[in-house]
Amino acid sequence: MASEKPLVAVTCTAPVNIAVIKYWGKRDEELVLPINSSLSVTLHQDQLKTTTTAAISKDFSEDRIWLNGREEDMGQPRLQACLREIRRLARKRRNAGDGDLVPLNLNYRVHVASVNNFPTAAGLASSAAGYACLAYTLAQVYGVEGNLSEVARRGSGSACRSLYGGFVEWQMGEQTDGKDSIARQVAPEVHWPQLRVLVLVVSAEKKLTGSTVGMQTSVETSALLKFRAESVVPARMREMARCIQERDFHGFAQLTMKDSNQFHATCLDTFPPISYLNDISRRIIQLVHHFNAHYGQTKVAYTFDAGPNAVIFTLDDTVAEFVAAVRHSFPPAANGDKFLKGLQVTPAPLSDELKAALAWEPIPGGVQYIIVTQVGPGPQVLNDPNAHLLGSDGLPKGAA
Amino acid sequence: MASEKPLVAVTCTAPVNIAVIKYWGKRDEELVLPINSSLSVTLHQDQLKTTTTAAISKDFSEDRIWLNGREEDMGQPRLQACLREIRRLARKRRNAGDGDLVPLNLNYRVHVASVNNFPTAAGLASSAAGYACLAYTLAQVYGVEGNLSEVARRGSGSACRSLYGGFVEWQMGEQTDGKDSIARQVAPEVHWPQLRVLVLVVSAEKKLTGSTVGMQTSVETSALLKFRAESVVPARMREMARCIQERDFHGFAQLTMKDSNQFHATCLDTFPPISYLNDISRRIIQLVHHFNAHYGQTKVAYTFDAGPNAVIFTLDDTVAEFVAAVRHSFPPAANGDKFLKGLQVTPAPLSDELKAALAWEPIPGGVQYIIVTQVGPGPQVLNDPNAHLLGSDGLPKGAA
Repeated sequence: MASEKPLVAVTCTAPVNIAVIKYWGKRDEELVLPINSSLSVTLHQDQLKTTTTAAISKDFSEDRIWLNGREEDMGQPRLQACLREIRRLARKRRNAGDGDLVPLNLNYRVHVASVNNFPTAAGLASSAAGYACLAYTLAQVYGVEGNLSEVARRGSGSACRSLYGGFVEWQMGEQTDGKDSIARQVAPEVHWPQLRVLVLVVSAEKKLTGSTVGMQTSVETSALLKFRAESVVPARMREMARCIQERDFHGFAQLTMKDSNQFHATCLDTFPPISYLNDISRRIIQLVHHFNAHYGQTKVAYTFDAGPNAVIFTLDDTVAEFVAAVRHSFPPAANGDKFLKGLQVTPAPLSDELKAALAWEPIPGGVQYIIVTQVGPGPQVLNDPNAHLLGSDGLPKGAA
Repeated sequence: MASEKPLVAVTCTAPVNIAVIKYWGKRDEELVLPINSSLSVTLHQDQLKTTTTAAISKDFSEDRIWLNGREEDMGQPRLQACLREIRRLARKRRNAGDGDLVPLNLNYRVHVASVNNFPTAAGLASSAAGYACLAYTLAQVYGVEGNLSEVARRGSGSACRSLYGGFVEWQMGEQTDGKDSIARQVAPEVHWPQLRVLVLVVSAEKKLTGSTVGMQTSVETSALLKFRAESVVPARMREMARCIQERDFHGFAQLTMKDSNQFHATCLDTFPPISYLNDISRRIIQLVHHFNAHYGQTKVAYTFDAGPNAVIFTLDDTVAEFVAAVRHSFPPAANGDKFLKGLQVTPAPLSDELKAALAWEPIPGGVQYIIVTQVGPGPQVLNDPNAHLLGSDGLPKGAA
């Protein structure tokens, strides 16, 4: 039936995730198997998401992909690995007798279009959302069900964590074929409603050392990374899961900061060394520690991925004051009205005592803008046909 | 005889040392015993030194000290520990029957004046030179001979390495009383005449986290530091000694850079994290790696202590070109003629190929100035009475 249609298109969205126990380093480059387990928080798609349309048609002569409106090479190994894997799963499913659920000829070519609503490659885990969305959308189009970790992971390791909402762990697994290296939800998105996430965008420049090459060099050269993966992370995974289950913000915040710092420490121990943090990142770290010290309580935590942008965790009752502290330390340059994006924040005054605790020279424009968001759900299918990024001709709608 | 003189004064100088295998963390705070051995290069006193005069007189009513012309509190525990230790050694010596060699009443009070010819507390190991000079000068005045490691160490751990010229290791020792935690020379200052040392002064500001508190927090909180001390440093000590013995610059340079990076990695793994490197430090690191990559050969190495200033090791045939590369990357602000201090450097042009390899936006004033120096001898006694920093009244000569 479906195979008679000239074109079948599905559009999905997928979220960004931010690791609180970091993934850095593969034990198998080909299969994308990590040297340690990791744990992340899925951010809400109202603020940060990837949207992907996949269309299949007998009329397509080749697999093609457009990222943010620009055609890219579908021959890239990581894209090919995802496609190969999803087709393998679909074939397996059909051979298992679920043939009716696999509606299309698996030899049909696919067109994919994908857009992010945030800058790519700025350390905001765009590849995680992107490959999770690709895996999820292709699975819809090819009628594949079940855990898609392996498909997403082949694109980008941390992408498997974007397949679920809430709090997600990626178990490193032990098998050499990677079958047990999968993501699973630790707690759903409604588990901790007070939790808020602020993305402090320091620089939207493309980073110097990509994470694929970076982690490869780290695995080859850093003795500290090996020790971390083997001897530090296992206990931290258990402790972090406990903090989340019990909504223990103090424990969650402390461990999040420590693990971010240790990840960046292993980058510095890499040879040649890798530095993702810059002077602004370090001032944000100081700001958080001074803010907490002022209250004698851990009210705010930072974490940094492979870039200078900070991701801040706090509770809803602290957002307004912390935003005021950031605005005080990094006065917005020209975009005072566009400084805050995302969830509404009621302006709050900064007490003189807190101002005094943050007593250093402000850096105008140090933080470009803040995205205020919260924990969110996993990938979604968009049922509105107007949402498709590809037209009935299988080409991007925006294209002339 | 000597005790009849109203005042006996001795003036000595001592060098700065730069660790190539870093010391960070004590296993005994009181005795200043380190968690790992370390190895350093003694810099030449023609460029960097501390000068100290110690005077003893029956007329002095209390122990007093002046640092860089300003009177400081002699009651500081570290100064007291040095004084106590030297007097204990002198007493021991006298009791052992060498009484004639201990010329003065040990109960006489001492006046000390000390000056550095470089900015204090800017990460230039001023405390190492300072306490080495104090220990050495007091030993002269009190007639104490032998290894002064314990005296200097009680002031500042790394000070024991400034008691010798050339290449010096500080063996961590195993005894709980610290008797075997001593410095010894690995190779004399004439061993490697081609070696040059450049201090790139990035910032002369006082550092945010002093090293005493910093290393204490690191020992308490960094799992990576413990691993480094126990499992990484022992092999590196042996390897570094070999590189020095064989004048293997490639090996020496690589290990120096790796050990500096690992030390700063453990600082970042400390909680709250410690960052001594800033964006300029990181650009210097990049500059060195690009310079070496351009030549396909390790011609230059960096190391950073607890501050943003870089110390560069290279061979005499590379100094001029590397200085040109620094000048190109960090154009001197207003002090073009005062940019280079120390040993003479014949200006060298920078090839277009090398300029291209360093192709990034120059940072004017990023490096304030460069001190060009080399490996130097240990502490010296100055026999010229005009060199005394204290007058015949026992007070600083410059004072009104």
